[in-house]
Order: sequence, then C-alpha cells, then structure tokens
Amino acid sequence: MKLATLRNGTPDGALIVVSSDASRAMAIGSIAPTLQAALDDWSRIAPALRECAAQVDAGAGVPLEAHMLAAPLPRAWQWLDGSAFDAHGRLMARLFGIQAKQSDRPLMYQGLSHQFVGPSDDVPLPRERDQIDFEGEFAVVTDAVPMGVSPAVAATHIRLVMLVNDWSLRALARDEMMTGFGWVQAKPACSAAPFAVTPDALATGWARERVQMRLRVEVNGAPFGEPHGGEMSVGFADLIAHAAATRSLCAGTIIGSGTVSNENYAITGSTCIAERRAIETLDSGAPRTPYLRFGDRVRMSAVDDAGNSPFGAIDQRLAKAHIPSQDDPAEAAR
Amino acid sequence: MKLATLRNGTPDGALIVVSSDASRAMAIGSIAPTLQAALDDWSRIAPALRECAAQVDAGAGVPLEAHMLAAPLPRAWQWLDGSAFDAHGRLMARLFGIQAKQSDRPLMYQGLSHQFVGPSDDVPLPRERDQIDFEGEFAVVTDAVPMGVSPAVAATHIRLVMLVNDWSLRALARDEMMTGFGWVQAKPACSAAPFAVTPDALATGWARERVQMRLRVEVNGAPFGEPHGGEMSVGFADLIAHAAATRSLCAGTIIGSGTVSNENYAITGSTCIAERRAIETLDSGAPRTPYLRFGDRVRMSAVDDAGNSPFGAIDQRLAKAHIPSQDDPAEAAR
Repeated sequence: MKLATLRNGTPDGALIVVSSDASRAMAIGSIAPTLQAALDDWSRIAPALRECAAQVDAGAGVPLEAHMLAAPLPRAWQWLDGSAFDAHGRLMARLFGIQAKQSDRPLMYQGLSHQFVGPSDDVPLPRERDQIDFEGEFAVVTDAVPMGVSPAVAATHIRLVMLVNDWSLRALARDEMMTGFGWVQAKPACSAAPFAVTPDALATGWARERVQMRLRVEVNGAPFGEPHGGEMSVGFADLIAHAAATRSLCAGTIIGSGTVSNENYAITGSTCIAERRAIETLDSGAPRTPYLRFGDRVRMSAVDDAGNSPFGAIDQRLAKAHIPSQDDPAEAAR
Repeated sequence: MKLATLRNGTPDGALIVVSSDASRAMAIGSIAPTLQAALDDWSRIAPALRECAAQVDAGAGVPLEAHMLAAPLPRAWQWLDGSAFDAHGRLMARLFGIQAKQSDRPLMYQGLSHQFVGPSDDVPLPRERDQIDFEGEFAVVTDAVPMGVSPAVAATHIRLVMLVNDWSLRALARDEMMTGFGWVQAKPACSAAPFAVTPDALATGWARERVQMRLRVEVNGAPFGEPHGGEMSVGFADLIAHAAATRSLCAGTIIGSGTVSNENYAITGSTCIAERRAIETLDSGAPRTPYLRFGDRVRMSAVDDAGNSPFGAIDQRLAKAHIPSQDDPAEAAR
C-alpha cells in the first residue's frame, strides 16, 4: 500500500491512497483525514485503507496530481535519525579527525521534525558558505511503541517506509558535534519523497528490516551515487528499540537510517557530498567536489532490482532563504 | 496572563485561563481549544484571552481543579534546550572530564517534545541504575519565528514563560555526549509546571529576557537548592536567535535555559544531583548525594522577590515504568 499527502492549505494536508504504479489516487478523508490520524489508530484504519488501495489499483479514483504532493508527514512529532551505515561513519570520522563509533550502540540524534519539505518544493537555506550538503536516507514510520520494546517487537511497529533527504550544513556540523549536544543549526528541515509505502508492498525491496534497494542521487542531472540500503550495520528494528529504551514513541515517529553508504564506495558512489570529499581527500590529498550553490538541483529516488521506484522522487532546487532585515521588527514578523 | 491545560482525554487537552492567584479558571474553548491553537494565531487570540483573564481575576469562572492540570503543552512540535548557565557547564565539564564550552556560541540540543509530563503525574522510568536525575530549568514558548531572526526581534516572539524539569539519566548521558550526536536515551520526557505565564505578568520576575526568580527544588520534602534564573550567560532572545539561525521555528516551540545554576553554588545549591555530586567531588574527593530511587518525590517551583510562585509547582513521584515482556508481542502492543 502506497500513501501520500495532498496539499490542502492545512499544516498536515490530506491523506490519499495511491495506486501501485503511482498513476491514480483516491481521497479517503472519511477514513482518516491525515496520515498522522491513520497512524494514531493504525490497526483499525489500515484495513480500510488497504481496501481503497485495491480499488485504486483496479482503476478507481482520479489521476494523481504529483505536483500537489507534500511530504507524507508534512510535520511529525518526532524524528530520530540513526547512523547505521558504518562505511559512512568511518569515512566521516576520518574527515573530521575524530574517532569512529566506539561501541556497538547505534548512533542516533533527535532532529527537527516540525517540518518536512515537500518532494518538489524549493529548499530555502540562508548561506552557501554554510557548506550545503544532502544526505540520502531511508526511514521508517512507527505507530505507538512502548518504552523498552525488544527489537523483535519493534519490527512489528514499522508501518511505513520512506525516502528522506537529510539536508546538512557542514560548516556548522563539526563545531556542534564537538559540543556533544548534537546538531541544531547544522540540521535544517529534511525533505521527503512523496510516497510512504508499507513494507509488504516493497516485496523483495524489504528484508531484515532494511530497504533492499539502491538510493540513487543525481545533482544537476548528473549521477552522484547509488549505494544499496541493505548494508545497514543494524536494521530499523534495532534502531527503534534503541530509540525506545527510555521513552515511549508516539505514533508517527520517523526513524532514519543515516546516510546510505557502502563499503565498495568506489563503485557505488555516495549519497552526500561530505563523504565524497572525504574519499577524494583519502585518495588524492584534497577534496574536489564543491558543496552546493543556490539554484542547484538534487534528485533522489530508490530503485529496486526490478527497476521500480516505489517512493517516487525528491527533486528539488536549493534557494536562498528570505532572511528578515535585522532592524525591522515588522519585516521580521511577516 | 496565566494559562493552563486541563485534561479532557485528548492529546492536547483544553486551554483554560487561570486567575493571577491560581484560585479560579475559565474554559475558553470558543476562543482557542488548545494552547497550541492559541499560539498558532497568537496576535489575534491573545487579546481575547486577556479579556478572559481580567474577568477571572474579577471573580468569573470556577474554582481551579489543580489535580486536573496537564503540562501547558502536553506535546509540542519542538523542544530545544540550551545550556545557558555557565556555572553548571563548568562544573559538569569537570565531572565528565571534558572541556568546558569552547566558544561564545550557545549550547543547545533538540530533545523529546511529543510528551511533557503533567505537574503531578508519576514519572515512569525503566531503571534506577540509569542514575535518574532532575534538572530545574526555565523555558519560553514562542509563536512562529522566521529563519535568521535577530536577538532583538526574537525577544518579541517570546509569548509565554514556563518551568520545566528536564529529567536526565546520567549513566547514559556521558556515552551519548561522547558520540557528538547529543542525547536520546539520556533525555526522556520532561515535566512541566502547570502555568504558562506571559512575561508581563511576571513583573519584576522577568527582565533582560531572563527569569529573575529563584528556582526552588525539594527532594522528598527536603530543600535541595534554589539558584537564581537571572544568571544566564545569554538570555532567551539569544537562544531563540541561535535556534532559528538555519530554520524557522513553528509556533509552540519551547526553548529551555538549561539547568539553573549560580556561581555562588555553595550558598544557592543546585537544581540537579549531578551538579551537586560534582561539587562534592571537588570539595571532598567523592560524591555523597545518591541519584534518585523509585518512589522519591521531586518538587520544583519558582519564587519571586515577593514570594509569589507564578508557575505553580511540579510535584511528582518517580515510578518504575512497565516494560513489556520481551517475548510477548501481545503484551508489548498493549
């Protein structure tokens, strides 16, 4: 089952059920007005959504207006992002001159969740000199998860799978990391691909609580990387259990994989610039790939073995944010 | 103006206006059903709320049922917690054997915001051996803040002031801090005092974007500390500007001061056990004060120069969380 959110002028948009081939959609407001509402009562609502999915696959509904799609959850109560691709962690540690992960505990930080940028929206950021970068990630959405859940039970709480671009400002990241407090300024709002998909609908693209697909990144139309999601050192069940060790997770919690990265990065490429620059530095003494400029386009999609792209694409342009005049409260309050 | 949230079986509760002396309350669902709704449209709604506040101060409304109060925002889209009391930072750095803050940039992390525990609710946590501690903090609630706001303009977005207990699990905190990713397991849900108060209503208790009151902590009925909130090295306007450097803040964002702590800690005491243990270690070579046990009570209130306690009190009992059986999915899903 494939779900999406249609813009309707409200913060959470309207939940729609989308056909498997993403050509058609059905409004299902009478069942659940928003994806958050569906997740709040998933066990009861999901069967009705699945009936709609069967109908829309059989030709019901209307043609999908892709340009009207927001992120599946335009805002979420919680975004906890792991770093479960060890290849990335090792490369970044070498770039930053810090120690790589020192234990078997998953790495995870809590990030901005009150906004997920829609898949074709411009991404407004303040300054190119902040070293604007992307991070291609897979993510899962849970229903309510009790505190102290085991990985085995955590797996049963994975309701939807998503594709996320975790925008990162590298010039700010290292200093924030060194404080030990994690990232605030270095991690603005993420973007999300349009379709949130149930694990069963991913077929062979989902196994061992990992997305078994390549995450394909293109920058300004040129291929950048397409590492495989199967190489997570810990799967999403372990990440959820880690997140829920001392807290219950609310329905609609989004758990990220961290930047998708493979050991054979020389062949697969990377899903973020910082990692490619680390590789360039290791290979030839200096980075060659620049960070992004305003106007650059970043496209991300996931591709399974059959060539399907179940999450749709994030395809966005980087834009200069409007920063209010510092001296004019009226301007700032707009 | 003093606002609070009454439990009504919904996640966000019902907004009420409370008399200055906290004896009476008025339901104002026709103006704004929830505090989040009021903050979403503050400029338009606040004047009507102020009219209700005048009426309830004049005897309208009903007696306040304090036991029915939830946290002012039982859940929030964003909780960004600073660490603006340098005395605390220096002591904790010595305890942890790490470097104290290395720049003039405020310290801040993003924390769990999908739940704020009500002021008299039990606090469920999984294990005493996690070294359960409290942190007494002041916090402000903003309306929508644009990206890149200056501190001067940020100050105009401070709509409400709160008192928060930022529960902390010290046995987990150091390891998480050393990853650079900030805290997930070490920072479960915070608790909040019942009343969110507009800065003007704090009178001399609010100046220079700081709460000019003592934060009084009692553990099992015994005084623990009462440092003064005025000693923040940066005020809330600076913290908001820091938070909004690369993101816009949604209405209902809560910004914390970090643990209230004073340079003359020998006289004022502390608002967390870890700091007291650091002081004991520095004074006599070893910590004496134990972390909390299940059943312990922690009470926090703020006291102004006239002896008023405008936020009311957090007064809670620590409880052992029900952790589901690891082998029983049905049990875990309860």
